[in-house]
Amino acid sequence: MPQALASIHIATRGRGLHEFSQQARDFVAASGLHQGLLTVFCRHTSASLIIQENADPSVQRDLERFFAKLVQDGDPAFEHDLEGPDDMPAHIRAALTQTSLGIPVSDGRLLLGTWQGLYLYEHRHRGHSREVVLHLLGD
Amino acid sequence: MPQALASIHIATRGRGLHEFSQQARDFVAASGLHQGLLTVFCRHTSASLIIQENADPSVQRDLERFFAKLVQDGDPAFEHDLEGPDDMPAHIRAALTQTSLGIPVSDGRLLLGTWQGLYLYEHRHRGHSREVVLHLLGD
Amino acid sequence: MPQALASIHIATRGRGLHEFSQQARDFVAASGLHQGLLTVFCRHTSASLIIQENADPSVQRDLERFFAKLVQDGDPAFEHDLEGPDDMPAHIRAALTQTSLGIPVSDGRLLLGTWQGLYLYEHRHRGHSREVVLHLLGD
Repeated sequence: MPQALASIHIATRGRGLHEFSQQARDFVAASGLHQGLLTVFCRHTSASLIIQENADPSVQRDLERFFAKLVQDGDPAFEHDLEGPDDMPAHIRAALTQTSLGIPVSDGRLLLGTWQGLYLYEHRHRGHSREVVLHLLGD
Repeated sequence: MPQALASIHIATRGRGLHEFSQQARDFVAASGLHQGLLTVFCRHTSASLIIQENADPSVQRDLERFFAKLVQDGDPAFEHDLEGPDDMPAHIRAALTQTSLGIPVSDGRLLLGTWQGLYLYEHRHRGHSREVVLHLLGD
Repeated sequence: MPQALASIHIATRGRGLHEFSQQARDFVAASGLHQGLLTVFCRHTSASLIIQENADPSVQRDLERFFAKLVQDGDPAFEHDLEGPDDMPAHIRAALTQTSLGIPVSDGRLLLGTWQGLYLYEHRHRGHSREVVLHLLGD
């Protein structure tokens, strides 16, 4: 059974969601495969994956507000602050969201719902170059 | 390598867990495949997937109590309330649980543990028809 | 397409992270497969999977501090305490982290990032023998 594998690099502009649904669709199209399983894997522990609503930008602001309150930057309870007050919070936010996602593909299309977008969630305040692996198994 | 793909529709009765372990087992049995990987994918951002204890119903009540306290309906901090006070909390609860799950299959059986059930977690107070994609890759 | 399947048993020493990255690498090497998808599945609802930083042990201590505060042992709001004050908190911590993970494999190597380790998160205070299923689909 054929497989396709690629890495995409996402230049984040600091904390927040960065959509890459289109890159994932382009990867599926370029593979020439029509039916199978797309695995998305984030190679970091201070950024993560999340599927969220792609329509109203207020969803992303509220999501960020929620996480900023739940996991407070500079919380004195944290020992691990070598890279700053957002270092440990980034690891915890990553633990509460996803490192890998599996999305079925049919007729060459990702089976995301109408309102679902595929996002990298950058948890550090500074922008980074983040690597996401795309792997497709199918035919 | 053979594949099987199906959508199931779950009519939820409002906020809470709706088990669909049996539908997933029926799908695997109907596929005729014996060994492989079942991917379960929820096509919504206000409902999600969760594997939880299938024995004592108090677990589900406690889980719901925890989430209701963690993400409060009608929290004035949320901008996104177009569909009501449970709109944004539903997106956050979905982000904290799962959109996709991968479960190995062996001898035609899902390798869930003895106490594991497969649930759709409806996060809206009103019932909805929710679509879950089942995809099996194996032989 | 070839598949490989195995169960590993992890003897936990009580609440906390137990790394099994090496066992996963050994499984991939023993399979003789070079390219594909590794699925990791935890057969419990009071232990779970998590990918976290493998370098500084303070990350694990801070993570545990965060979860211990977020989901309090013996919280009187919980009905389900048959197995003790850490019973229901264990189920909630499992719901907030992962039961399954998918990790692409290339050139016989797991595509984990440099700082990523693969951990079983034991949520009970007492040690347990935990079963994790490893499944590889590839060639």
